Amino acid sequence: MKVTKFGGSSLANGQQLQRVYDIIRADDDRKVVVVSAPGKRFKDDRKVTDLLLSYAQATLADEDTTEIIETIKHRYHSIGEFFELPDYELADLDEQIEHLARKHYRSFDYLYAAFAAHGEYLNAQLIAKIFNHLGMPARFVDPKEIGLLVNDNARSATFDTASYTTIGELDLSTSERLIVPGFFGYTRSGDMATFSRGGSDITGAIMARGLRADLYENFTDVSAIYAVNPSIVEHPAAIQQMTYDEMRELSYAGFAVFHDEAIIPAIQGGIRINIKNTNDPDAPGTFIVPPTEVQQTRPVTGIANSNRFAALYLHRYLLNKQVGFTLRILEILKRHNISYEHMPSGIDDLTIIFDKTMLTQEQVDNMLSDIAAEIKPDTLKWIPSYGIIMVVGEGMRNRVGALTEIVAPLKERNISLQMVNQGASEISIMLGIQPDLSDSAVEAIYTNIFK
Amino acid sequence: MKVTKFGGSSLANGQQLQRVYDIIRADDDRKVVVVSAPGKRFKDDRKVTDLLLSYAQATLADEDTTEIIETIKHRYHSIGEFFELPDYELADLDEQIEHLARKHYRSFDYLYAAFAAHGEYLNAQLIAKIFNHLGMPARFVDPKEIGLLVNDNARSATFDTASYTTIGELDLSTSERLIVPGFFGYTRSGDMATFSRGGSDITGAIMARGLRADLYENFTDVSAIYAVNPSIVEHPAAIQQMTYDEMRELSYAGFAVFHDEAIIPAIQGGIRINIKNTNDPDAPGTFIVPPTEVQQTRPVTGIANSNRFAALYLHRYLLNKQVGFTLRILEILKRHNISYEHMPSGIDDLTIIFDKTMLTQEQVDNMLSDIAAEIKPDTLKWIPSYGIIMVVGEGMRNRVGALTEIVAPLKERNISLQMVNQGASEISIMLGIQPDLSDSAVEAIYTNIFK
Repeated sequence: MKVTKFGGSSLANGQQLQRVYDIIRADDDRKVVVVSAPGKRFKDDRKVTDLLLSYAQATLADEDTTEIIETIKHRYHSIGEFFELPDYELADLDEQIEHLARKHYRSFDYLYAAFAAHGEYLNAQLIAKIFNHLGMPARFVDPKEIGLLVNDNARSATFDTASYTTIGELDLSTSERLIVPGFFGYTRSGDMATFSRGGSDITGAIMARGLRADLYENFTDVSAIYAVNPSIVEHPAAIQQMTYDEMRELSYAGFAVFHDEAIIPAIQGGIRINIKNTNDPDAPGTFIVPPTEVQQTRPVTGIANSNRFAALYLHRYLLNKQVGFTLRILEILKRHNISYEHMPSGIDDLTIIFDKTMLTQEQVDNMLSDIAAEIKPDTLKWIPSYGIIMVVGEGMRNRVGALTEIVAPLKERNISLQMVNQGASEISIMLGIQPDLSDSAVEAIYTNIFK
Repeated sequence: MKVTKFGGSSLANGQQLQRVYDIIRADDDRKVVVVSAPGKRFKDDRKVTDLLLSYAQATLADEDTTEIIETIKHRYHSIGEFFELPDYELADLDEQIEHLARKHYRSFDYLYAAFAAHGEYLNAQLIAKIFNHLGMPARFVDPKEIGLLVNDNARSATFDTASYTTIGELDLSTSERLIVPGFFGYTRSGDMATFSRGGSDITGAIMARGLRADLYENFTDVSAIYAVNPSIVEHPAAIQQMTYDEMRELSYAGFAVFHDEAIIPAIQGGIRINIKNTNDPDAPGTFIVPPTEVQQTRPVTGIANSNRFAALYLHRYLLNKQVGFTLRILEILKRHNISYEHMPSGIDDLTIIFDKTMLTQEQVDNMLSDIAAEIKPDTLKWIPSYGIIMVVGEGMRNRVGALTEIVAPLKERNISLQMVNQGASEISIMLGIQPDLSDSAVEAIYTNIFK
């Protein structure tokens, strides 16, 4: 049995959904289908999730919502029309869209979460209707029905592993395909709460593990995961297979094809993942598998980079002689609900690296003023933009010299690094770099290693 | 005015002290003399400080102390005899040695601190007597007299900077040389408390800053600080001058010539330091100076290594998504009064590096069991011996490619690194390595860079 997940671009319109239908019909093992909300149909289009968030905002601001409601309805209706689904089949979807604004929510966060979750929630209902209409028995499965529980973090929820038991009880013996909306679960109080953006991958992984699937297929719009971002290097090498940990490290630093948190259920359940292309379903795609299944041929599997970081630099003499120095800094971070990514230190120097997409300017200002007042460093410097490059490969385990192949081409091009962190992870080397140098550094490293 | 400090090997016997006398007499600017306890006279000799610690132990165990007392007395007497100092001059020293065992102490730690401090305390008194006997007016200055205050950490005390004021009031207008014992100060309650071992360097630096000395001379048994440990590389390059920060980084990783904490008062007071050789006083030695005074000629000033570290490796998925994860680990460390050195992290991995000379096995066991119970990592590994190499040079600031010159020779010799930490400090690159590979790695790096 396979759990098969489709991303937003695979579900953007009727034409794309037709491909999805064909893919599902071609393989009876594709029993459980996890779907995202309809994505962009063209470059400047808006995703349905973004439309729903505008609708949420307008509702909160008590603005006129007629137009945005019509736009959202139209997206679903146009998909239905493609398949000549009778209009009355969509009446309950329309009602749900309108009802969203009239419900009571525990907080603004839960309101936003519920609006956003409806992109998937409505789409799964619609897709079940369309599949039945086209003659393939299908049933919409509400995450509530299978007890997909999450914690109380409304818009970046964490999955409650107790749910694997109830998910595992889902009846797969019927002939119906089961259509499950991705991206959200329910809190113990019954509120919808979403994973972080892109979280449909997580739902797919949870379903695959809970149901002990043989394979978790993840359909997207690329035929493989490439060893480097194709916008940096033309026609880069495709990765045929890689390990779970390699995927995690690469997605951390910008490989957005697969959500990094979605790997965990797969690892824990030993579920193989296959990234495939809805528009080229016969291509083998990329397999993400346990380390025992991979025969490595090259030291480096992929090179990722992301400029979403920021850094704080601190200098203070005898910094590391004080028990509790870093502890006091971390207490300040916790006070402002800030988590950090990495903390390389010298004898008298400490750099703290943050994911700036997780920070507001207010948090940064408060943190900086508290550190200045309570820690009294000799130097305190905020670096608002910081790039990270991850060079990843199981082949680097116990292999001498990978670092030389990484830094030598940078020296040649006179590109300087702000940080080198090797050894914390056995399968990757992390580099810190000025954001504007990041792409050319990646290109230099890729060219040296892969060509 | 110069503050001139002599280490234990320069004061081990009468012959050595004669050299010290000649050095002091040769320069009227050598007004303040800071002395250590008599050190080893030959390879398997015992330092007086170690004899005093045995005496402390025997006292606590209520064992017979006659022999150890005689051994200690003999060390001082044999120095006095060399200068034909009349025996009655040493009567009050003998009395002080005996009296040590009869005094009351606040705690075992204060007992050990007082016994250890007497190595310097008695030696400074003896040296003042001998200098006077030889015709050079000299006066013993008790740190109590100049208000050299320290905090309540009996055996690894921190200096109270308020003391600079009282030290600055010391009368330097007399013709006497002032003989100050190194290594210890007094708490506010009047107890002797020592700096960490080698702490006479700290006393010298404090005196130099408090008295605004023109130069802090630090006499030891080498004619210069070398760019690499002479036991690893034969006839290494001598360092003629380096900056304060370079010295700090090098002494952190094993350059024991100068105590790393002793740099701080010098930096703060802008005091130049000159490391010189008692046995070759005309050699220029090594100057440690502010960065503005150094003309750099090579990217790397020195390479140090030390195997005094240990490491803890932790693996846990989504480790860095949790606000407060590291905070909880640091709280466990603080609970057991453990400070850490460095904490390189990957996405799901965290390595914590410790100075194992600061740890007891009991602390380690307690920390490991608390981390296992409270943090529940997927993997928890204790690495009892871990080497660190520091490649240090102001010339590395903004210089591209230093890392290549460091890792390339290691690749050639097939030496693998466990950690590379570049960027936390602007003037050094820190490498983690298996202790048994450390020396050959240093040799390879030195050869590549210096030859």
